[in-house]
Amino acid sequence: MTYCVGMLLKEGLVLLSDTRTNAGLDNISVYRKMFTFEEPGERVIVMLTAGNLSVTQTTLARLNEAIDDPEATLDTSIMQADSMLDVATITGEMLSRVTAETQARMDRMNQAATASMIVAGQRKGGRMRLFLIYPEGNFIEATEDTPYLQIGEHKYGKPILDRVITANTPLDEARKAVLLSMDSTLRSNLSVGMPLDMAIIETNALRVSEYRRIEANDEEFAAMSAAWSQALRDAFAQIA
Amino acid sequence: MTYCVGMLLKEGLVLLSDTRTNAGLDNISVYRKMFTFEEPGERVIVMLTAGNLSVTQTTLARLNEAIDDPEATLDTSIMQADSMLDVATITGEMLSRVTAETQARMDRMNQAATASMIVAGQRKGGRMRLFLIYPEGNFIEATEDTPYLQIGEHKYGKPILDRVITANTPLDEARKAVLLSMDSTLRSNLSVGMPLDMAIIETNALRVSEYRRIEANDEEFAAMSAAWSQALRDAFAQIA
Repeated sequence: MTYCVGMLLKEGLVLLSDTRTNAGLDNISVYRKMFTFEEPGERVIVMLTAGNLSVTQTTLARLNEAIDDPEATLDTSIMQADSMLDVATITGEMLSRVTAETQARMDRMNQAATASMIVAGQRKGGRMRLFLIYPEGNFIEATEDTPYLQIGEHKYGKPILDRVITANTPLDEARKAVLLSMDSTLRSNLSVGMPLDMAIIETNALRVSEYRRIEANDEEFAAMSAAWSQALRDAFAQIA
Repeated sequence: MTYCVGMLLKEGLVLLSDTRTNAGLDNISVYRKMFTFEEPGERVIVMLTAGNLSVTQTTLARLNEAIDDPEATLDTSIMQADSMLDVATITGEMLSRVTAETQARMDRMNQAATASMIVAGQRKGGRMRLFLIYPEGNFIEATEDTPYLQIGEHKYGKPILDRVITANTPLDEARKAVLLSMDSTLRSNLSVGMPLDMAIIETNALRVSEYRRIEANDEEFAAMSAAWSQALRDAFAQIA
């Protein structure tokens, strides 16, 4: 399992992922699920992945191969694509193709291998956009009414987001909200684990404005988690 | 879907269920999921159900038939059983048998029909007990370390319970906690719906101490829900 969340706010994009990958409960590893593509001043793209690791790794490898290909065009390379919509389309097609190839082999074993992705960013001249790409390659987009998208174990961390996040939420509030949303998920689902990767992209910055890896022993995160527990208990005590 | 929760506390049992049953999103109905069996001073039993309605209704109907059978024994009637453990065993066997019968018919259609139950109560001379019965008929029991059990859509309402509930929580705090846990679930899952049924059984009362049906327009519940939303937002604003 995994928990990744992306938010599209007036002030910018906030993205957070965990790093735990597991094959059974007795085989866990740390794998990055956040990938950044940047040409400062021109374009910035962040991808988050959830699901079968062989599918997501192969999809990312092929997207990178397409970028490096000397014959790359705006239809094959996400770093040449004209718009974020084209980036989502290229990524969705690649994810769909890799899923279909892998699935053909998995079918023989009666197993399933699917993955989903969050793709966010901004192309110079365009607006910031945030997409959730399904295993079939089709996608949905965040809007002002629904400014955040989640993949993986989304349920535990959703109530806090629903209560505090709107498109007008400032970036520092949003940073706090995604971390608390992750904190609730970490407490309840063993297959979501530290460290975390967080990226913030300010509107029209066209680069990653802030990137942080939050390790298991991060004192700031631990303090926020403890303060939130206490604040929740206080809030609970205070209502009639 | 459904959300039911039961808590086993030093002061007593707290049980809460929703009433929504759905066959698809376009076919929803209100069905009671809380069932009470009481011989005041002798025994009190409350059951909560989740899952396929035909399975839970048939299971309850047969348990009632066994109670009314003039040849009922302590091995067949939950109202004659010697202990809450025996009540859980009789209920588990009945649930397993009904599930197997229904499943045989469903298999032909490549469909599944399962259900799970919470069974709680006290038999004179015994202690209060709380069980979660799986579709296969086996069961687990609440303990001092894990004083609450959930069936149905358990994820949205779990974080609040994990943070505030211990075996020593007083009944009025526990009542507040289950209602807030339900409130979070109602907000996030359309297949969980009002009205709610709540029962409280004080330790050694051997009867239902308090029963309440909470309708969709209940002012007290609406006020608590609004106060909790505000308290959460305040708590969020207050932490660094």
